[in-house]
Amino acid sequence: MDFDFTTTASSSSASVAAANFTLPPFILTPLPHLADHLTDLPALPTPIDRIPFYHPSPGFYIAPSDVIVRHILFDLSSSDSTPSSRLLAYHRAGPRQTIRFDPAAVRAAIVTCGGLCPGLNTVIRELVVGLWEIYGVRRIFGVPSGYRGFYSAEPVPLDPKMVDGWHKRGGTVLTTSRGGFNLEKIVDGIEKHGFNQVYCIGGDGTMRGAVKIFEEIQRRKLYVSLTGIPKTVDNDIGIIDRSFGFQTAVEMAQQAISAAHVEAESAVNGIGLVKLMGRSTGHIALHATLSSRDVDCCLIPENDFYLEGKGGLFEFLDQRLKQNGHAVVVVAEGAGQDIIPRTDAQKEEKDESGNPVFLDVGAWLKSELKNWWEHEHPGELFTVKYIDPTYMIRAVPANATDNLYCTLLAHSAIHGVMAGYTGFVSGPINGNYGYIPIQEIAVSKNLVDTKDHKWAWVRSVTNQPDFLRI
Amino acid sequence: MDFDFTTTASSSSASVAAANFTLPPFILTPLPHLADHLTDLPALPTPIDRIPFYHPSPGFYIAPSDVIVRHILFDLSSSDSTPSSRLLAYHRAGPRQTIRFDPAAVRAAIVTCGGLCPGLNTVIRELVVGLWEIYGVRRIFGVPSGYRGFYSAEPVPLDPKMVDGWHKRGGTVLTTSRGGFNLEKIVDGIEKHGFNQVYCIGGDGTMRGAVKIFEEIQRRKLYVSLTGIPKTVDNDIGIIDRSFGFQTAVEMAQQAISAAHVEAESAVNGIGLVKLMGRSTGHIALHATLSSRDVDCCLIPENDFYLEGKGGLFEFLDQRLKQNGHAVVVVAEGAGQDIIPRTDAQKEEKDESGNPVFLDVGAWLKSELKNWWEHEHPGELFTVKYIDPTYMIRAVPANATDNLYCTLLAHSAIHGVMAGYTGFVSGPINGNYGYIPIQEIAVSKNLVDTKDHKWAWVRSVTNQPDFLRI
Amino acid sequence: MDFDFTTTASSSSASVAAANFTLPPFILTPLPHLADHLTDLPALPTPIDRIPFYHPSPGFYIAPSDVIVRHILFDLSSSDSTPSSRLLAYHRAGPRQTIRFDPAAVRAAIVTCGGLCPGLNTVIRELVVGLWEIYGVRRIFGVPSGYRGFYSAEPVPLDPKMVDGWHKRGGTVLTTSRGGFNLEKIVDGIEKHGFNQVYCIGGDGTMRGAVKIFEEIQRRKLYVSLTGIPKTVDNDIGIIDRSFGFQTAVEMAQQAISAAHVEAESAVNGIGLVKLMGRSTGHIALHATLSSRDVDCCLIPENDFYLEGKGGLFEFLDQRLKQNGHAVVVVAEGAGQDIIPRTDAQKEEKDESGNPVFLDVGAWLKSELKNWWEHEHPGELFTVKYIDPTYMIRAVPANATDNLYCTLLAHSAIHGVMAGYTGFVSGPINGNYGYIPIQEIAVSKNLVDTKDHKWAWVRSVTNQPDFLRI
Amino acid sequence: MDFDFTTTASSSSASVAAANFTLPPFILTPLPHLADHLTDLPALPTPIDRIPFYHPSPGFYIAPSDVIVRHILFDLSSSDSTPSSRLLAYHRAGPRQTIRFDPAAVRAAIVTCGGLCPGLNTVIRELVVGLWEIYGVRRIFGVPSGYRGFYSAEPVPLDPKMVDGWHKRGGTVLTTSRGGFNLEKIVDGIEKHGFNQVYCIGGDGTMRGAVKIFEEIQRRKLYVSLTGIPKTVDNDIGIIDRSFGFQTAVEMAQQAISAAHVEAESAVNGIGLVKLMGRSTGHIALHATLSSRDVDCCLIPENDFYLEGKGGLFEFLDQRLKQNGHAVVVVAEGAGQDIIPRTDAQKEEKDESGNPVFLDVGAWLKSELKNWWEHEHPGELFTVKYIDPTYMIRAVPANATDNLYCTLLAHSAIHGVMAGYTGFVSGPINGNYGYIPIQEIAVSKNLVDTKDHKWAWVRSVTNQPDFLRI
Repeated sequence: MDFDFTTTASSSSASVAAANFTLPPFILTPLPHLADHLTDLPALPTPIDRIPFYHPSPGFYIAPSDVIVRHILFDLSSSDSTPSSRLLAYHRAGPRQTIRFDPAAVRAAIVTCGGLCPGLNTVIRELVVGLWEIYGVRRIFGVPSGYRGFYSAEPVPLDPKMVDGWHKRGGTVLTTSRGGFNLEKIVDGIEKHGFNQVYCIGGDGTMRGAVKIFEEIQRRKLYVSLTGIPKTVDNDIGIIDRSFGFQTAVEMAQQAISAAHVEAESAVNGIGLVKLMGRSTGHIALHATLSSRDVDCCLIPENDFYLEGKGGLFEFLDQRLKQNGHAVVVVAEGAGQDIIPRTDAQKEEKDESGNPVFLDVGAWLKSELKNWWEHEHPGELFTVKYIDPTYMIRAVPANATDNLYCTLLAHSAIHGVMAGYTGFVSGPINGNYGYIPIQEIAVSKNLVDTKDHKWAWVRSVTNQPDFLRI
Repeated sequence: MDFDFTTTASSSSASVAAANFTLPPFILTPLPHLADHLTDLPALPTPIDRIPFYHPSPGFYIAPSDVIVRHILFDLSSSDSTPSSRLLAYHRAGPRQTIRFDPAAVRAAIVTCGGLCPGLNTVIRELVVGLWEIYGVRRIFGVPSGYRGFYSAEPVPLDPKMVDGWHKRGGTVLTTSRGGFNLEKIVDGIEKHGFNQVYCIGGDGTMRGAVKIFEEIQRRKLYVSLTGIPKTVDNDIGIIDRSFGFQTAVEMAQQAISAAHVEAESAVNGIGLVKLMGRSTGHIALHATLSSRDVDCCLIPENDFYLEGKGGLFEFLDQRLKQNGHAVVVVAEGAGQDIIPRTDAQKEEKDESGNPVFLDVGAWLKSELKNWWEHEHPGELFTVKYIDPTYMIRAVPANATDNLYCTLLAHSAIHGVMAGYTGFVSGPINGNYGYIPIQEIAVSKNLVDTKDHKWAWVRSVTNQPDFLRI
Repeated sequence: MDFDFTTTASSSSASVAAANFTLPPFILTPLPHLADHLTDLPALPTPIDRIPFYHPSPGFYIAPSDVIVRHILFDLSSSDSTPSSRLLAYHRAGPRQTIRFDPAAVRAAIVTCGGLCPGLNTVIRELVVGLWEIYGVRRIFGVPSGYRGFYSAEPVPLDPKMVDGWHKRGGTVLTTSRGGFNLEKIVDGIEKHGFNQVYCIGGDGTMRGAVKIFEEIQRRKLYVSLTGIPKTVDNDIGIIDRSFGFQTAVEMAQQAISAAHVEAESAVNGIGLVKLMGRSTGHIALHATLSSRDVDCCLIPENDFYLEGKGGLFEFLDQRLKQNGHAVVVVAEGAGQDIIPRTDAQKEEKDESGNPVFLDVGAWLKSELKNWWEHEHPGELFTVKYIDPTYMIRAVPANATDNLYCTLLAHSAIHGVMAGYTGFVSGPINGNYGYIPIQEIAVSKNLVDTKDHKWAWVRSVTNQPDFLRI
Repeated sequence: MDFDFTTTASSSSASVAAANFTLPPFILTPLPHLADHLTDLPALPTPIDRIPFYHPSPGFYIAPSDVIVRHILFDLSSSDSTPSSRLLAYHRAGPRQTIRFDPAAVRAAIVTCGGLCPGLNTVIRELVVGLWEIYGVRRIFGVPSGYRGFYSAEPVPLDPKMVDGWHKRGGTVLTTSRGGFNLEKIVDGIEKHGFNQVYCIGGDGTMRGAVKIFEEIQRRKLYVSLTGIPKTVDNDIGIIDRSFGFQTAVEMAQQAISAAHVEAESAVNGIGLVKLMGRSTGHIALHATLSSRDVDCCLIPENDFYLEGKGGLFEFLDQRLKQNGHAVVVVAEGAGQDIIPRTDAQKEEKDESGNPVFLDVGAWLKSELKNWWEHEHPGELFTVKYIDPTYMIRAVPANATDNLYCTLLAHSAIHGVMAGYTGFVSGPINGNYGYIPIQEIAVSKNLVDTKDHKWAWVRSVTNQPDFLRI
């Protein structure tokens, strides 16, 4: 790294004079495009120029040369000339001056798969409204019941009037389901219905499925553009800043934490226990804890914990009860899976992806807490109130922050698809919308970095143990 | 710009192959530090290492060489070797291994100035809790009534127990006021009370005042570190991603817009008119519009508008009423100031800063709309319902998103002050917390870029006129 | 009054032994019925008996002999043999075993008039669902735009699917307007469209109009049953316990009071001023004050007040500011109309009913408060924040309490109409639903009794002056 | 019954002419009073007359002769001269002109027992504020941890400043617990601490305990007045119109039902299942169902149900899924206890009162539904989402309706106690506050009358089966 970095002589922690530095080269991630395979695809002028009331300014359209850089934190003291990870940049999202679909010929399909997430209906609504109002597309269909709907259900025609109030409704009006992924049947269905734009909204399994559909579309050399819109309330998808619905979930989780806090406070030696969503990651638990400030301990999958002995959860809670008379524990559903005893049946049981099934860490913890107290403080009053607000969180409509986000997300996706990009995902990278190859998204993972400052802050905020058995 | 950028030969809009590029040099913005003037300031080990339950990992502490880059959008096709603006980077925020205050000797002062903003009490609470719990500071004071409190009121001792539930309360428990800025008296008060850490929370006027206090502190060579925490519900401060309270304001604005929408929908030729905060900028109006999806037209200070004639507001609303029977208009308080007729008295009148006083654009617009309709459609039913929700928006407690933000903001500020930095502001830059010289913040301005895509989206979302008189 | 009332000998305030007493005779209020004029009207069995899953129990149907008594408070010590007011009873509401409409021949019209009120859409929804599901009526129409819709608009057919989510929407989907009352045209319209059931939802003006329509229907001897459903968010209608939407309004008013309280608390000498609905009565102001507990003074139309001098508002607020540093004032919009100075134009101006126009007591009070302070405490800090939340209150959907109430109200109305009653209103009397002649409702008035205990409680709760100039 | 009741000759269902009727004698329920045992108790003038700003009007004070009648529904056709139940009246609540406590000598104790209920803190707050502000009492204590606190904890002095914001907090700041009822120790504690006013807030168990304490106080001839304030979110206490917190619970239950509805709607063959509070009664379930309008079936303890066969739940849900694709079921926790299979251990297990323990009807129903579907529709998609929102409902602060109610309830209690009444409960009877002997309350029971109209309405609203096996 070529760096001209001078500190003041007197002190290593003192301020740093203005310094120039240069960064190693960035790599611009290439993006699949319909023209990669369909070489004679015509390039058409965007109809945006012809919208009445609307006069795009010079900088309005985004060019393929407009990029956004992803890696933006650097340690200038590092003398290493080869940075540990490659520096990446992505194409910016937004309207292109040239499009690759005649709006009159577009048949767009929207499908929602997997569990509920606040904002699902907003994304659907905005896809419909955006395609209709901005590009003049008139044939837009909802595919019911998730992926299986491509081959087993009749698509539902959608228009702006129909979807008008959907952003104020939780769930998905299209209905959703898990499973039903049959690659051949799905792509056959796409062909049969004549869809040439496919918008897949779903979680990591859905994204992996979308990769396969995209590849099959490419194999069949179809004139079909596919985009994925990652839906994961857990916020466990990488590269993008966050996934839609996450902020709403954190907001709603406050209610549960607040109730647990009230229950704990109002009891003698009261413990409030809240299980929050997050199978592989504790983002919701972490953010809800930092937002609420009523939480004494936050347990997440990324940080092992233990119950007994020095530095364990019981010791910590014993102290808190002595100090405050009550305590609140938040646990992500994926936490502690390694330490919950499994029956033989549970050891055998695997989920659809072949992983061990999830056990209910909340119920287990509640039971362990009761046993511990009875053993340690027999006869003394003690209460554990356990709250699992999962369905009450994920079924609400998106809040304003997420509604705006879903709006921009859907519009970004439309612009990319109309421009002929395919096999991509749109999303905010460091606050700006970019396009990312869907393969890259499908394998990315956003975990809580227990080495970084946000986690440190949680621990400083809660003063909770780090369970390092030191 | 040294750039190896190759497009596929066949098509200019087609995908771009993986490409390397290098960026011009960045400039690292220097940060004022107590050691700049107090050369014999001792460097102490941080007490964080000694917190029980707490084992900072290797990457936990932030070094002066840790930076975050601010400019992250590039047009690779630009052949210009001199970029239009200098590329800037900033020091990252976070705990330092070496601190410059003995916690036992700290006397911290917290002051809130200007109007209310959701999150004020959270920032105060977190400053108190963070100083107390992480650094062991025991003398923390609230200065009542804004800047004038430094010389006219008795500081209030604060501790974690006292501030415990403050993050769930709107307003500021410390009380606030405008004006009262007397530089000499304030710095004398700081000296008299023996404060060596000053946390100033307030809007742009407060930040400009803080710059002067900082400079006077430097002139007097005091062992006092000052940090500013920008409070502007309007989100009109530059460099940082957003200001605290803004998301909550956008959330609350939905209620007003929703009520205006219901009133408009339920009437015959009903217009719902909502005035939202934003004197120099329309961020709240813009975000609330994009979040709500019930708004037909959003008027902001950055975009001139006119009422009559082709392409004007009346023509647009006439169309909307014909199509839908109702319409919703959102107007930022700073919009249209140039076209509201002023009385001679109003032309003379100046506010404290010497600017022309603000006129009530909402009341004026309501009256103009009525006159227009009576003139154009005499005898036909028509209703305008005007809502000004300002105080109901700014007096609420912060939502979860803002509470978390205020928490991280306060902790960032504490870490910077304890490390000896002064005359700075902490805030998120592209999603990561950094330290910015307060002088730079005080002159920065965050306006809606009506050339960029977000504004374009608003117009595409509302199909509202761009008032360009073309 | 024939009363055998014996107290214990020892003490006049001591407990009273079990005592028998008898009450003077009650008068059962007669109810207009279609059979009064249409003597050969057939009596049909209700279809409720034939609903699958449904087995009405013996006590299920209400008979004309089922009554509810209205006067239930008595002073047993009163030796007066003639009670001051006549004791009244009313027919109970509910399903009758015999109905007077063949469901297949029903054409029902629903109209909403006047301003918005939470629950309007719920009443409409429940009328549609109740008629359809319980009685099997299939021709139900919404009359748009209020009374004028009977002669100037096309009725909109309604069915359960269409109205399904309406109870979660504020306002009225049917749209509403003021005025447009043309008796001949309206009754002609009823005849022309073949409506034989008319459900009028509106305020006191609407009820007076409904009386005239009812009388004209009787004059023309039409086979048309009319019922009124009083809509007054102010709760100013007599006889019934309360009007729908009132509880929701009180609930929403808390937000405004809370914001005013926060603004006042956060300022130096801060006054929060909230104007609440209530032209002739202060029920909303009173209930909101008792619910909120943050209010220092509640001004209502039923209680004159004055500003200056001993026992006046200014003296009271001066004390409060000295004690607490802030104060919150709630004022009903009809309060103080006598003491606000009127311009000559305002003295002339009359509203549609010939009453003097209403002046904005909130704006006036804000201005008077500022003048007073500047005069009494020149140079001292002082802030008045004035909030008028009217449209944000009345445009919200009904809360659970009101939604349930609207449901029972609509079903009561349907049962009465199907049974052949006409010219009536249904509503709760001492907690039980009864039928009341609409003429009686139209002239009734529910004012706050400033002699009774609830008002006394307000004063004890706020310690506010009674403005009696004693 | 002496009744002059004439119907119009033509038709039995036609309107009834104005008719006089007289009612059988009422019995006025006697109220225990301190003077019953302490015959030389002095009678003092109330200090209310001396409150500045306050001028009680002639009708302000309530006399022992002011009564409210409880039975208000009559069937005038009943020829039975002996009504089925005795007609009862009660003393009205409110301030008395003569009191039996010298405020300077009062030592008041407030205790909260049992589970949480919205409004608990409001009642406490209002007792403190009312005693302090209206009567000038200065020694008011909170007894922590429920009944056991009388002998095992130190009372906490309370004053208006301390309790100021409590009505906005859920739970009970005093803390609560179950059990710990030791009569001797409690009354000894009352004597030891010198309490002469005891305010017991709690559920039916607490009320039965309060009866015993009251009787022991009488036995010991103590100068101690005791009042009970029934706290039962289930609304299962008789005579009074409703218990505090109930409306808030119904309001909050909407969220859970709404979430269940969204989950059900968004799935293929989705069932949303919500368990609501109500061990012996289904009031919350019933009211929440009537308020929400999204519920297909409401199961309550008062109405047996069965799963299989004709007219059973499964058949009903099968139909609903065929019609709508989804269904929502609300079940009160006490429903179905007779049909849930119990293990031998569960058959043995008794709760503290010797009743069979409650089984989780929600979890059982969820499991039964899954088994049924797998058996009846193997391979078809099906989802049951089960929500138990209990703690999230009961831990919230009271809404405006309940806050007002708690305020009036507390003030009524204070006035009664100050007047020397004891062993009583205050509460609304047909909308007006009265005093009821606590023994009567302790044995009263408020069940849903499945014969009456409200239940009929539920069934008509949901079209659910009545499970009568006809």
